[in-house]
Amino acid sequence: MADDKKLTTRAEDFSAWYNEVVLRSELADYSPVKGSMVIRPNGYGIWERMQRALDDMFKASGHVNAYFPLFIPQSFIAKEAKHIEGFAPELAIVTHGGGKELEEPLVVRPTSETIIYHMYAKWVQSYRDLPILINQWANVVRWEMRTRLFLRTLEFLWQEGHTAHATHDEAEVEALTILGIYRRFAEEWMAMPVLTGLKSDSERFAGALRTYSIEAMMQDHKALQAGTSHNLGQNFAKAFDLKFQTEKGEEAFAWNTSWGVSTRMVGGLVMTHGDDNGIVTPPRLAPIEVVIVPIWKTNDERPAIVEAAMQLKAELTDWNGRGASDKLRVYVDAREGIRSGAKYYEWELRGVPLRLELGPKDLEKQSVFSARRDTRAKAAIPCAGAPVAVAALLETIQHDMLAAAKARREAATVRGVQSYDEFKEIMAGSGGFVYAGWNGDPAVEARVKAETKATIRLIPDAEFRSATAPTRCLVTGESAKHEVVWAKAY
Amino acid sequence: MADDKKLTTRAEDFSAWYNEVVLRSELADYSPVKGSMVIRPNGYGIWERMQRALDDMFKASGHVNAYFPLFIPQSFIAKEAKHIEGFAPELAIVTHGGGKELEEPLVVRPTSETIIYHMYAKWVQSYRDLPILINQWANVVRWEMRTRLFLRTLEFLWQEGHTAHATHDEAEVEALTILGIYRRFAEEWMAMPVLTGLKSDSERFAGALRTYSIEAMMQDHKALQAGTSHNLGQNFAKAFDLKFQTEKGEEAFAWNTSWGVSTRMVGGLVMTHGDDNGIVTPPRLAPIEVVIVPIWKTNDERPAIVEAAMQLKAELTDWNGRGASDKLRVYVDAREGIRSGAKYYEWELRGVPLRLELGPKDLEKQSVFSARRDTRAKAAIPCAGAPVAVAALLETIQHDMLAAAKARREAATVRGVQSYDEFKEIMAGSGGFVYAGWNGDPAVEARVKAETKATIRLIPDAEFRSATAPTRCLVTGESAKHEVVWAKAY
Repeated sequence: MADDKKLTTRAEDFSAWYNEVVLRSELADYSPVKGSMVIRPNGYGIWERMQRALDDMFKASGHVNAYFPLFIPQSFIAKEAKHIEGFAPELAIVTHGGGKELEEPLVVRPTSETIIYHMYAKWVQSYRDLPILINQWANVVRWEMRTRLFLRTLEFLWQEGHTAHATHDEAEVEALTILGIYRRFAEEWMAMPVLTGLKSDSERFAGALRTYSIEAMMQDHKALQAGTSHNLGQNFAKAFDLKFQTEKGEEAFAWNTSWGVSTRMVGGLVMTHGDDNGIVTPPRLAPIEVVIVPIWKTNDERPAIVEAAMQLKAELTDWNGRGASDKLRVYVDAREGIRSGAKYYEWELRGVPLRLELGPKDLEKQSVFSARRDTRAKAAIPCAGAPVAVAALLETIQHDMLAAAKARREAATVRGVQSYDEFKEIMAGSGGFVYAGWNGDPAVEARVKAETKATIRLIPDAEFRSATAPTRCLVTGESAKHEVVWAKAY
Repeated sequence: MADDKKLTTRAEDFSAWYNEVVLRSELADYSPVKGSMVIRPNGYGIWERMQRALDDMFKASGHVNAYFPLFIPQSFIAKEAKHIEGFAPELAIVTHGGGKELEEPLVVRPTSETIIYHMYAKWVQSYRDLPILINQWANVVRWEMRTRLFLRTLEFLWQEGHTAHATHDEAEVEALTILGIYRRFAEEWMAMPVLTGLKSDSERFAGALRTYSIEAMMQDHKALQAGTSHNLGQNFAKAFDLKFQTEKGEEAFAWNTSWGVSTRMVGGLVMTHGDDNGIVTPPRLAPIEVVIVPIWKTNDERPAIVEAAMQLKAELTDWNGRGASDKLRVYVDAREGIRSGAKYYEWELRGVPLRLELGPKDLEKQSVFSARRDTRAKAAIPCAGAPVAVAALLETIQHDMLAAAKARREAATVRGVQSYDEFKEIMAGSGGFVYAGWNGDPAVEARVKAETKATIRLIPDAEFRSATAPTRCLVTGESAKHEVVWAKAY
């Protein structure tokens, strides 16, 4: 599975650590097409669990799935002025099909607003046809040659929600509802704390009225934008003639939202929780939550130990305490010819949240020896009642991982910066999230970015704002329009 | 939702009926890109249930999911000689990306053998790395301008399994295991009976050693190839240098299989079960199994009736008799301003398996009035114990739909055809599956196809062969090499 070489440590070189850990834990691999990647079963298993959790939340809030075509007429992309401006440099173009040159080249979707709102315009006549609450799970392509596995690839997998509403306010509620779902998913499933808030104009989605995002802090103190939700206003409705007859019989343009999260989240999970021994997967997203390693010294010992391990697995997986649709996910590593230490090393690299070791002595004592992946804490667990104890321990791990990540974020968060010089020092040094006042001027934003590489991650929602709002713009000293969060970002 | 115009009947024009029913039940729509389609929520909901069922079966048999890139270097496709011959005319080519012309054009995957076996070659060193049992859910593109929604589109969704094994026999077992899964899925979930068997050489997948398929009969007596499973032999392993060290320390090429089913199955479902009132969805694949229509005459009556309908829904969906992960899927249509008759019409068009009507009189009698979608049979169901009765009725519907489809297939199956003239008459007339002897000569196959449009669907597995095997070739009178099944096909 993996060679025995030590990983580069996070402290030595975070970026090298990330690449190594993704490759060696077999989450992903480089594809022969420059810029694109292969998601291997270990990584895809995490993505599948992410999909299932998000999909359940989307459905519970009234959304349905559909599928729109990969290819979009080039002319469609140009219909919304800001949209084409934003996406033109990233497009992949199909010029030939079925052995012939096409009359109109086709764009491989970088996102699907244009084709979707074209279809909605066909489907919607009256206010009775609204709202439309559709999501799609799909691949998208944005040209990109500086690959960072999961974080920046030519093709990636995502979900994109596209809704149409009768009023601005309904669309706004939708955009914020989804932001809430993204936050809940990040915290409850990924154990990744996030800030929520509004993007500044320069970071807004091409064609949107307002863009909201969730922002997480990675262990190198850089921000990861992990999901965005856009109130598109009537921009696309006007470009695609998405009109409806109101209850009063008048004609009006619909209001749209769009929102998405992608396989980038897998990268976020790795950079939030991974350590120098490998990735650390939060239990709720782990394809395997528990690995049982039976330990034997002689071949004579093996059959009884393996049988006991299999029996323990059966007890754990038969247990119904989390409900029939959420059985414990357990794997027994009974491979011969591999030392137990090498097995531990492998499963740690792969981030399985809990390891149970079962040797002859444990068997005698009718207990197993447990090792947590997150804290590496070890303890004996009696075999009697093991399912309840294991499930409780997994919940504790899930909870502790979120708490630990939150503590790391807070430790690298600075409020009350006194001067732009101090800010520059922070960004040149340890980095992190810096809260400061901003006069609202995009020129200031551009200057700070040029000088420090930091960008405004968001104008935080009330819950995340400082107790005392800064009154002055950090850079110009002018009156502050907003408190904002600055950070270098992926 | 739909206009009130009657559908063209199947007897009048099956093909027109199909298009109308797919559009009007809102399963799918035409996309602005010629040849491609939009799968609307009603159709996608069925596909999602198909995916879930198949995915569960793949995983239960040891397979895992992964994701490989959409774009494949053009040179890859050319590496396996038969493969490029088969797919060259259908390719979509990306020539420009990120504003520049590419050095090597990229092919949009028509299927992923080439890129996958290239990756496996990188991952596999020893027999210990085998077998690899990977599946991927993805979109693929095959250039096609004569669109038939779900059946023939430029882009479609599918799953493609790709496995690597140490021996021919293991690969053969895998190919046949998957064929069994496809058959079980078709029969138990789609209520669509299928024949299984081997394809003739001319119908074999481009690059395979042997292709197996499941073949279903549509109501117009044409065959639909609903899934294929290929033993690829070592053809791709040799083309992509997929070698491994055997247990004895020798070097050997791996043996591969690939297999897939696609959104075409949704079309198969429509053509197997649909009637002149719309589609008919087998309960196990229906996003909504039961629609409750509360009926009121006056506005005074409405609140009590709607409340009773909601309560009935709650009783049905709370019921746990099919397990926590398989709750009854129930919808209450309490819309105002729409006659009950119009509601019935809509839900019949959409194929919901069971309708429950609940009016003041039913409420008095503490019963509901049920209407089956498949047989249109109606009966009262007492409210007490309704969940058990409804679940049982749904099972009966599922069972009866398979039996009815099987009876239709058998009625249009001819064995013991006496002469090629008789065969031609059948194919010119009612069509159907015709069992006959074949000398094994591809020239005979080509001639029959040219003269009658019928092709050899498969050399049936033992279970489906005639009690007395034909001894003579139907066309030449020579000694028969195989009994085969002829039909016109989609």
